[in-house]
Amino acid sequence: MNIELIGEEIPLLEGIRTARAIRRLKPDPVPIALIRKVCEAGTFAPSGGNRQPWQFIAVTDRERRAYIASLYRETFTQYIQPAIEAAKAPDYPEAKRRNMKAAIYLAEHLHEAPVHLFVAGWTRRGAPQSQALFPAIQNVLLACRAVGLGASLTTAHRAHGEAIDRYLGLDPEKTPSIALIPIGWPKGRFGRPTRRSIDTCFFENVVPAQSKD
Amino acid sequence: MNIELIGEEIPLLEGIRTARAIRRLKPDPVPIALIRKVCEAGTFAPSGGNRQPWQFIAVTDRERRAYIASLYRETFTQYIQPAIEAAKAPDYPEAKRRNMKAAIYLAEHLHEAPVHLFVAGWTRRGAPQSQALFPAIQNVLLACRAVGLGASLTTAHRAHGEAIDRYLGLDPEKTPSIALIPIGWPKGRFGRPTRRSIDTCFFENVVPAQSKD
Repeated sequence: MNIELIGEEIPLLEGIRTARAIRRLKPDPVPIALIRKVCEAGTFAPSGGNRQPWQFIAVTDRERRAYIASLYRETFTQYIQPAIEAAKAPDYPEAKRRNMKAAIYLAEHLHEAPVHLFVAGWTRRGAPQSQALFPAIQNVLLACRAVGLGASLTTAHRAHGEAIDRYLGLDPEKTPSIALIPIGWPKGRFGRPTRRSIDTCFFENVVPAQSKD
Repeated sequence: MNIELIGEEIPLLEGIRTARAIRRLKPDPVPIALIRKVCEAGTFAPSGGNRQPWQFIAVTDRERRAYIASLYRETFTQYIQPAIEAAKAPDYPEAKRRNMKAAIYLAEHLHEAPVHLFVAGWTRRGAPQSQALFPAIQNVLLACRAVGLGASLTTAHRAHGEAIDRYLGLDPEKTPSIALIPIGWPKGRFGRPTRRSIDTCFFENVVPAQSKD
């Protein structure tokens, strides 16, 4: 497998349109060089003053992933319970129900995901510069799409953020982890995610009064 | 010009690696359908609970752009003055000096940029969900790269945020604008931006003690 050549063909706009969150992942290992490649794509994102505030920590060790998954599951159960109840209503939208099922699957199987990729970043004036990391995070998600890896963006680990940061060797005050991206070979297929039409949210010059909601 | 076909060929990873900020723009007009296309790419970004909190406002009207540029320039002059002084030092890094020159150029010529694209988003519990918008913003920047448009990410308009939001027809409490992306045909070329090596910020399992900042 020549890592340098993998995923170099897929067109940018097609990739953007079909990079849906993939939460059902095979447990098979992923070459660390391929994870390095998708993280390198992250580094080409813009950042204020080109400060490049990111760090990428790819957790591959089985025991470490089990520990992270146990903390994640704990948060997820508390956080999602009201949503699971709400989803029992007969008029609950089908697309949302599918998303929730996938999120529950991820929480139950997180320990099996071969890579737990954390993106961490510098703080500034005591506050995490999380918005400075999200362009890089999006690049990583798109690069996963390009090389054929399933990935999704989660932040639920933040409920145990300080413990997890220390476990990763990060100083929670200086370089907290902002996102956890579980990565692996996809069980399902890439595809266009459900979105409202661009015409509901695109305006020239001024937003008309009736669209303000 | 068939808008649907423009930019569909460029590969994703190559686009990510060469989407440097382009701040020198030609004043020539850009078809609004092409701006709609790059914003549509924005809508395929992930958002928590698939809430899709974004609105895109493309300001093309000449007088409106002049007004926005005047407010932007005012902020920029105050904000950048210390940096301009610092850049006079003989040991100031050349790459940073080039970036600063381009930022000054943008501030002086913003009224000429044919499109001032604002990305606005819903607030939640009174706070702007800016981090929820940055994946979409990065998609827009990459889509500009794909279709051959120059673009860069700025947030300096926020110093006059409330005035600008009202001018755009946005409620500053409910859907503040987060980013201003000036867009136009590039005067220069796309290219690989200056970045430190991925090996300085990529770690497996644990960040070693000596790499913590």
